Amino acid sequence: MTRTQNEYDAALQQARTGFDEGGIPIGAALWRDGELLGAGRNRRMQRGSAILHGEIDCLDHVGRLADYRDCTLYTTLSPCSMCAGAIALFQIPAVVIGEARTFPGEIEFLRDRGVRVEVLDDPVAAELLTRFAAENPAAWSEDIGGR
Amino acid sequence: MTRTQNEYDAALQQARTGFDEGGIPIGAALWRDGELLGAGRNRRMQRGSAILHGEIDCLDHVGRLADYRDCTLYTTLSPCSMCAGAIALFQIPAVVIGEARTFPGEIEFLRDRGVRVEVLDDPVAAELLTRFAAENPAAWSEDIGGR
Repeated sequence: MTRTQNEYDAALQQARTGFDEGGIPIGAALWRDGELLGAGRNRRMQRGSAILHGEIDCLDHVGRLADYRDCTLYTTLSPCSMCAGAIALFQIPAVVIGEARTFPGEIEFLRDRGVRVEVLDDPVAAELLTRFAAENPAAWSEDIGGR
Repeated sequence: MTRTQNEYDAALQQARTGFDEGGIPIGAALWRDGELLGAGRNRRMQRGSAILHGEIDCLDHVGRLADYRDCTLYTTLSPCSMCAGAIALFQIPAVVIGEARTFPGEIEFLRDRGVRVEVLDDPVAAELLTRFAAENPAAWSEDIGGR
């Protein structure tokens, strides 16, 4: 397994855990130089939170950092405008995205702000979210602002 | 006092409370049809959180909403890209901003996404944040991504 796969798997594991909890299965993990700084998952269902998307939950768990240089954020789904805005705010230089099929996200915004973006097109992440959305269409719509 | 002032004061009170706690003095409040749905303040210092900006803390306290139609978000400071991204994601139609002197924020992004933006240019909000930033320049820089 390559390093990217290993690091991405920390995000995918969060999505699986979320799915098993009845949550929206999206996970994220922040890595720096081979070290996992923190991970998180969408908590809308588990905590009744509108703002704990996978990436935001992950950054919350990482806590305060003076800077995010040399960090890469792995996320199973293309980031929404809130999460992309957080990535831009903290100048996280690189994002690896599991998939952008189920939700296009803000890849163009990220690239405009100088973020390096890679999309893995992971069918496992897409399958988890597709299953959740089919069973919980209202909750999924709510999580992405009624789209 | 006009309704706007009254509603804005809920955000300003959060900023004052944050200042008294030794926190970054930025507050926010979400209103709908004269009803306060929730309020919040920046918690970087109090909770060691990178993501609890005033607006995000406010939206977290509001909890799950099916939609944000007819809502107005009041915030003492022009929203950063994370907070502006949250406003765009949830299609919050209107934002009233205390001031954009100490930090320009993402007013153009908000307007591009169809959000109505009003800036009050409130000297009290600016004074609170200027005092905090003068005494805690590293923490303030950290909160806005090292700018």
